[in-house]
Amino acid sequence: MNIVTPRRPSGFPEFLPHEQAQLQGMLDTIRCVYQKYGFLPIETPAIELAEVLLAKGGGETEKEVYRFTKGDKEYALHYDLTVPLARYVAEHENDLAFPFRRYQMQKVWRAERAQKGRYREFYQCDADIIGSSSIGHDAELVALLSDTFSALEIGSYTVHINNRKLITGFIEAIGLADKSSDILHAIDKLEKIGVEAVTQILKDCGCGEDDSQQILDFVHIDGSIAEIISQLEGLNIQNDIFTEGLKDMRELTEQVQALGVSEDSYTVDLKIVRGLDYYTGTVYETIIDEHPEFGSVCSGGRYDNLADYYTKTHLPGVGVSIGLSRLFAVLKEASLLKESSVPVTIFIANFGKGSRDWALKVASILRQANISTQVELDDDKPAKQFKYADKLGVPYTLVIGEEEVKSQKVMFKNMASGEQEVLSVEDVITRLSA
Amino acid sequence: MNIVTPRRPSGFPEFLPHEQAQLQGMLDTIRCVYQKYGFLPIETPAIELAEVLLAKGGGETEKEVYRFTKGDKEYALHYDLTVPLARYVAEHENDLAFPFRRYQMQKVWRAERAQKGRYREFYQCDADIIGSSSIGHDAELVALLSDTFSALEIGSYTVHINNRKLITGFIEAIGLADKSSDILHAIDKLEKIGVEAVTQILKDCGCGEDDSQQILDFVHIDGSIAEIISQLEGLNIQNDIFTEGLKDMRELTEQVQALGVSEDSYTVDLKIVRGLDYYTGTVYETIIDEHPEFGSVCSGGRYDNLADYYTKTHLPGVGVSIGLSRLFAVLKEASLLKESSVPVTIFIANFGKGSRDWALKVASILRQANISTQVELDDDKPAKQFKYADKLGVPYTLVIGEEEVKSQKVMFKNMASGEQEVLSVEDVITRLSA
Repeated sequence: MNIVTPRRPSGFPEFLPHEQAQLQGMLDTIRCVYQKYGFLPIETPAIELAEVLLAKGGGETEKEVYRFTKGDKEYALHYDLTVPLARYVAEHENDLAFPFRRYQMQKVWRAERAQKGRYREFYQCDADIIGSSSIGHDAELVALLSDTFSALEIGSYTVHINNRKLITGFIEAIGLADKSSDILHAIDKLEKIGVEAVTQILKDCGCGEDDSQQILDFVHIDGSIAEIISQLEGLNIQNDIFTEGLKDMRELTEQVQALGVSEDSYTVDLKIVRGLDYYTGTVYETIIDEHPEFGSVCSGGRYDNLADYYTKTHLPGVGVSIGLSRLFAVLKEASLLKESSVPVTIFIANFGKGSRDWALKVASILRQANISTQVELDDDKPAKQFKYADKLGVPYTLVIGEEEVKSQKVMFKNMASGEQEVLSVEDVITRLSA
Repeated sequence: MNIVTPRRPSGFPEFLPHEQAQLQGMLDTIRCVYQKYGFLPIETPAIELAEVLLAKGGGETEKEVYRFTKGDKEYALHYDLTVPLARYVAEHENDLAFPFRRYQMQKVWRAERAQKGRYREFYQCDADIIGSSSIGHDAELVALLSDTFSALEIGSYTVHINNRKLITGFIEAIGLADKSSDILHAIDKLEKIGVEAVTQILKDCGCGEDDSQQILDFVHIDGSIAEIISQLEGLNIQNDIFTEGLKDMRELTEQVQALGVSEDSYTVDLKIVRGLDYYTGTVYETIIDEHPEFGSVCSGGRYDNLADYYTKTHLPGVGVSIGLSRLFAVLKEASLLKESSVPVTIFIANFGKGSRDWALKVASILRQANISTQVELDDDKPAKQFKYADKLGVPYTLVIGEEEVKSQKVMFKNMASGEQEVLSVEDVITRLSA
């Protein structure tokens, strides 16, 4: 028979079981927090009708969509969870309670140029609140993000918050409304390319030296949240959009505080605009403090109308998205992944046919006590059994030989220390549940 | 703007949040039991290289594969989890400990003719043990299935076990070895089309009347497990394959008993052969006792060599697969789905700005106590808030008005009974944790 070399297309990550368990642990943690905030689960099909999924036209993204024909239909794999959410909400509008809080954790696919930490298949973990313009929802997402990143236990983090109305209003107030889009795109690049390069871009799109300086001064306003807000007030800008943004920001931070979110875990950052024109108000980025080089590991913001391509109902919303696969990859590289709860806790070694029934009985008692257990069923030599247990990485082994069958006990062996002692099965359960 | 009607391709199921929560509950339950038996998690990419995934050639299945070209590569979506497992095991051979117990719960895609309860996108939940021929592993899977279906709480069930060597050896012994494949395919149809139709097929493929009767008598051997085995022994068949099958079955049932599996939950059923030629020994089917019309909701068996297309290493294995989406659909239709643990337990209604901060504080305390909580943030009128809470289906609402702010308490309302009482937040937590 011809052997086909087993291999995957590039950009499609795959993990060994202990890594998969770590990833699963992160998914479980995120889900648990999302649910605590009353977000409801949905899943949408990976495959959508191309004409529906791409109704809006994806610009740059559209080239990256996996699309194909089967029969007389053209299909496309979803490349994010926002467009499917829009389709979902429009399709099930009458069955949902608005504001609709949904979370969705699924893989998405993009034929991006393969690059380190850039995958073509990756998990996104999204939470959105659809159908309300109240700033209280924006505040809840700050609390949600803070709780989520605390629960993930991957070091200290900061949720950076801004409101695009502030910079948009400011630009209008200094008479540069016509260059607004160019200026926002320039600021969006600030973290990556630095002040000098951004100044050059601003110059190129027709901003005077003074204007550029004003804009850069504005986005660099810094301090505690109270200080930043007070500085913004001090600017005395007479512009409706700016005033609205300032009011939003004041209310948002008040409510975040009322929600008891620690001031260590969030900040106002006027430099954040998020590239997407899609966002209209609050925007979020989340930085792992010790690893700013990871970039934002969870981003999002408020948008005006989620599903305008699918329904006439006006659906404003606010949402965040964790790019989990990328986060997992950078944490792994930086050795910051939490140890997973070891799935196999107990391996039962088994010396000869005579001890098999007792070994199986012990396995069944341990499993009833919710202790993950695997028993030797191949009658391999003891040395081979221990080598296997080592490779599995189990912390404990039970050795069952003639003596143990007679006494209906087990030899409990700590694989790390090598210590062993004879225990009853009940004692093993007590030991492991302690 | 042109509105595109929001819709999905047919055969792609999608659920409302409370149904999704029920499905998620089943996934969690299955995962939990699989892990208790020491199965390790893996996931493989949805998209594989077509030449690798389809190396073996899929026969009928191949037509149902979603495949497409992007750039200079031809891709295919996985249509089961067994071929990807074979590729995975061969690719990561050196990093895995054998016998390798893995579970894998993912969606797969097949462009099947759309039909009731037949989906084009569906969840499979597989557990396999790779790299050992010991019958003990076959026995463990019976215990695994029994535990899994008990944990799912969807009524009584029976795991039907057979060993293909029994019927194959029997056919050889009565001199019909050359018709073996046809006979097995006929028996496979027995449950669906009945004795008469099968007799006709047997006749068509050249079996005499006596032969047909013998075959049908054989597969209908019935009774307790001990009785069936004793009847098989009583046949005194002199055939190596049959003898091997009988020994396997004896050992398997002994070990299943040693594992403490209730005799109510499994049986030996000589009618089961499973269509796939792929299986060589033990085969399994699982029937929900009250709903035989569902057919087998979890099937599998032992195979000789998992990954012969990808590696020269001989990898015998045994595995089972739950077609979860189909199971979910039939349970839903039969109103047998378990209520999901309601994701939103508490809705905090909020009467006016004055009470907002206390409402947010209460939400944060409840969430810290792991109680799923949502708070009204839209300042809607009370009647609208309660209507919303009703539509969400929350069992409890906390009402917070001026009085409650003053006393730093909450009005705890049972949505079903309408009863309400004033409680401290601590009392609410105690009440809900009880």
